[in-house]
Amino acid sequence: MRCAFPPTLADGPLMTTEKIVTACLLIIGNEILSGRTQDANLAYIAKELGEIGVRLREVRVIPDVPETIIATVNAVRTTFDYVFTTGGIGPTHDDITSECIARAFGVPWVLDAEAKRRLAAGYANPADLNEARLRMAHIPQRAVLIDNPVSRAPGFQIGNVFVMAGVPSVMQAMFDGIKGRLSGGAPMLSRTVTSGLPEGVLADGLGKLQARYPDFDIGSYPYYRRGGFGTSLVVRGTDADRLAMAIEALFAMVRSLGGEPYEGDPPA
Amino acid sequence: MRCAFPPTLADGPLMTTEKIVTACLLIIGNEILSGRTQDANLAYIAKELGEIGVRLREVRVIPDVPETIIATVNAVRTTFDYVFTTGGIGPTHDDITSECIARAFGVPWVLDAEAKRRLAAGYANPADLNEARLRMAHIPQRAVLIDNPVSRAPGFQIGNVFVMAGVPSVMQAMFDGIKGRLSGGAPMLSRTVTSGLPEGVLADGLGKLQARYPDFDIGSYPYYRRGGFGTSLVVRGTDADRLAMAIEALFAMVRSLGGEPYEGDPPA
Repeated sequence: MRCAFPPTLADGPLMTTEKIVTACLLIIGNEILSGRTQDANLAYIAKELGEIGVRLREVRVIPDVPETIIATVNAVRTTFDYVFTTGGIGPTHDDITSECIARAFGVPWVLDAEAKRRLAAGYANPADLNEARLRMAHIPQRAVLIDNPVSRAPGFQIGNVFVMAGVPSVMQAMFDGIKGRLSGGAPMLSRTVTSGLPEGVLADGLGKLQARYPDFDIGSYPYYRRGGFGTSLVVRGTDADRLAMAIEALFAMVRSLGGEPYEGDPPA
Repeated sequence: MRCAFPPTLADGPLMTTEKIVTACLLIIGNEILSGRTQDANLAYIAKELGEIGVRLREVRVIPDVPETIIATVNAVRTTFDYVFTTGGIGPTHDDITSECIARAFGVPWVLDAEAKRRLAAGYANPADLNEARLRMAHIPQRAVLIDNPVSRAPGFQIGNVFVMAGVPSVMQAMFDGIKGRLSGGAPMLSRTVTSGLPEGVLADGLGKLQARYPDFDIGSYPYYRRGGFGTSLVVRGTDADRLAMAIEALFAMVRSLGGEPYEGDPPA
């Protein structure tokens, strides 16, 4: 058996002429790759970007290795409209993101007076702003600061690359501050239909429905919970009216297969 | 100020002649990139690999797009010793990982008699093994099955690429089954020293300690909890005796800076 790949939203040309704005997230840090720290930034950034119509198309988790950071930044910043990075902008020896971004862009890594002022404001004793902490006041030349209302040390934007902290509370505060700088497309809308039917029963009709709605991304996600199993069908796209039609068609399909569909995720 | 990059374990040649075995994880699925689903497989696989001395060096999260999956698999399978994939091997139209892996390797995607037998064993009515479900019995030619003791539909290995399910309970059962096929190096050991000192106070001494122990990966991770903040210092490497020396040196350093070090993570 050879199945033709079905069309999906991400797959080919859209049926509309809307420009698709894309993004890539780089999660920088050995602690994620060792399994010590569970990333919490991907899902947050993904949802926020969806709301402003930016599609997160790829995420890479990479180690605190200069050559890897530099090569990866340069690979993805030419491929995607926006690049976001998290992690590696603190004061210690393993915080090398900022200097690596400067090297990726081929610009000097310089002390920023405003960043230094913000850091200094947090220390009663000027001597506490030691050499290690002053690293956090260095940014690539001509980069624009990203505010950090939580712990002062700023992130920065250079070109289409936004460099943020790895600590989720700090990253989220930084992201709130830069949302206004981002130009997206139509917000991504998402609706979910759940039923107790297994994927194998839904698959045939679902594939046909996807073919009828090539401008939507239809996903099928089985769940196994105490007390039951079933499948959530998620439809994502930008046209609310057509989305309503697709959801109605999904309800009819599930009912025709003997299922009892409802809108939303299964009970936890 | 221009800081030279400090040497790290991942950075350059090791001081030992031990071969470093590397791995890359591909997380395949629009549901991760949309933020709908929080990945739980990265940390599990990372820890398991560490125990058998395989270093997880990169993770990529990519969408259910054939060209992206094929190109990414082909890019990473020549770079890393092992590649693991999660997601996209179910029966629905968006489950395209298996066929894409066949295309990446340039081999036919064929019905596997043993995979079909395992699937069929789960259905009292033979008609329930419909065309969609039979997709799950197709694998790239000459691939080797990976057992699925949870829900029967197998994964597979082709070359250095291991293709597993995305549902964490299924992925974990599959991974348990393939661990014996993997050849790693010395297990990665990890010890943690925590204190209430901020990173900015620790940074200078920590950088010097990293320089003294280039065969270790020393990470610094600030925490902010109700009731306090501080920093966890994580030392990772393969030599238990030298690790003990490094930990002793860390304790001494933290005490010399006025901190009260203890081994382990901060209280939750």
